[in-house]
Amino acid sequence: MAAWGERLAGVRGVLLDISGVLYDGGEGGGEPIAGSVEAVARLKRSPLKVRFCTNESQKSRGDLVGLLRRLGFDISEGEVTAPAPATCLILKERGLRPHLLIHDGVRSEFDQIDTSNPNCVVIADAGESFSYQNMNKAFQVLMELENPVLLSLGKGRYYKETSGLLLDVGPYMKALEYACGIEAEVVGKPSPEFFKSALQEMGVEAHQAIMIGDDIVGDVGGAQRCGMRALQVRTGKYRPSDEHHPEVKADGYVDNLAEAVDLLLQHTDK
Amino acid sequence: MAAWGERLAGVRGVLLDISGVLYDGGEGGGEPIAGSVEAVARLKRSPLKVRFCTNESQKSRGDLVGLLRRLGFDISEGEVTAPAPATCLILKERGLRPHLLIHDGVRSEFDQIDTSNPNCVVIADAGESFSYQNMNKAFQVLMELENPVLLSLGKGRYYKETSGLLLDVGPYMKALEYACGIEAEVVGKPSPEFFKSALQEMGVEAHQAIMIGDDIVGDVGGAQRCGMRALQVRTGKYRPSDEHHPEVKADGYVDNLAEAVDLLLQHTDK
Repeated sequence: MAAWGERLAGVRGVLLDISGVLYDGGEGGGEPIAGSVEAVARLKRSPLKVRFCTNESQKSRGDLVGLLRRLGFDISEGEVTAPAPATCLILKERGLRPHLLIHDGVRSEFDQIDTSNPNCVVIADAGESFSYQNMNKAFQVLMELENPVLLSLGKGRYYKETSGLLLDVGPYMKALEYACGIEAEVVGKPSPEFFKSALQEMGVEAHQAIMIGDDIVGDVGGAQRCGMRALQVRTGKYRPSDEHHPEVKADGYVDNLAEAVDLLLQHTDK
Repeated sequence: MAAWGERLAGVRGVLLDISGVLYDGGEGGGEPIAGSVEAVARLKRSPLKVRFCTNESQKSRGDLVGLLRRLGFDISEGEVTAPAPATCLILKERGLRPHLLIHDGVRSEFDQIDTSNPNCVVIADAGESFSYQNMNKAFQVLMELENPVLLSLGKGRYYKETSGLLLDVGPYMKALEYACGIEAEVVGKPSPEFFKSALQEMGVEAHQAIMIGDDIVGDVGGAQRCGMRALQVRTGKYRPSDEHHPEVKADGYVDNLAEAVDLLLQHTDK
């Protein structure tokens, strides 16, 4: 692999995944990953632009930022690209009235959305709300529509909390796709539209940006398909087999965000 | 389409699906589909051989037969090919110790199976037991195995109860496949091994047998791939769009089992 200086040349903006990179969720909200609080602070003091790009769909953006600030991170709501606000824009543009299969923690994001007489289903990381009863209800709504529309906030397979690996929204999206014989529209990583909106909000071109994430497919593969570079951290849901993924090869693997920031500050143009 | 006499020529044995053909499940056990009790009785008085071939995996074979007998059907346990007993044979042959994600109603089928220190997961139509917690547990067991094995009792998308359409095991099998990046082994229709064992038990060759079911893919498509003929009934989970399925064309569509039996008794060799 080329030297770091070559791999990181011309980087002007950094997109940071949140869960598994900044912190691991869990009991009492979760805990920061060692070195990540300082790493974010150092990045923000550098000339590099920084934006947070998350698929978190169990909490509202406000609650997520509140939690991260309590954990010590320098972060504000305006710096976060998240799927729930992006979904609300799509619903309004297309006149869609969703049946919501979501966690109560994110419900406030949909306060301004008409949910009467639903003509689509929105599925997010509902956690314990992924009961058989709630899945059936979403299934029945879709089966009664002539043109069933399913919007999924991300399609992650699983994520890591302090207690272990937990199923994300993706498996449940696949379940509804199979049950109804349809294909969901994904709002969030690895959708190119989602990465592009994060880049626009950061004001940096794809070839000048690098994504740092713990998901080899959703973060690394998705960002690379948009023309960005991408590093995988060995924290969060990272597994050693990711470094031999049959389809996706990161531009670099680092032990954690702190190491990624060390390398970025050392090798990108001052 | 050819005349019925031509389409049914040489049929010597009949495989009957149960749910959606004999009865619709639901409150209090369910109710027989009009005409089906008499249709089964007439078939059994005819020279045709009859066997029941079901993907029912929420009840033990004994409980299913007990329910059907209470509904008026002439049926005994020895006449039923069902996935739970077939799964137990596979587990024993291969030395597999399952973690069971199943409905309590079918647990007795696995009484003789060692479930300590699991080295595979068995998933069946668990109904309300498809909680987030139970799905996570099965996912975590699979993720800890070096060679994860997932056995699924059928892969039906949904079935019909008197209260409406309900999710079957298939969507949950797909969820675990996606979460773990693996492919399940299906025990039940449309697996060719399953149809073949039902034919053997009936003592009839595939080209002399006809399947009658309400599932265009699992019953009709699966039986045809084994060299059998197959009729779809317009009861149970049947939907009009099934008659224009892009891949599967039944050898005939009938309003219900009673009409199928009328045709069989009229057109097969006496």
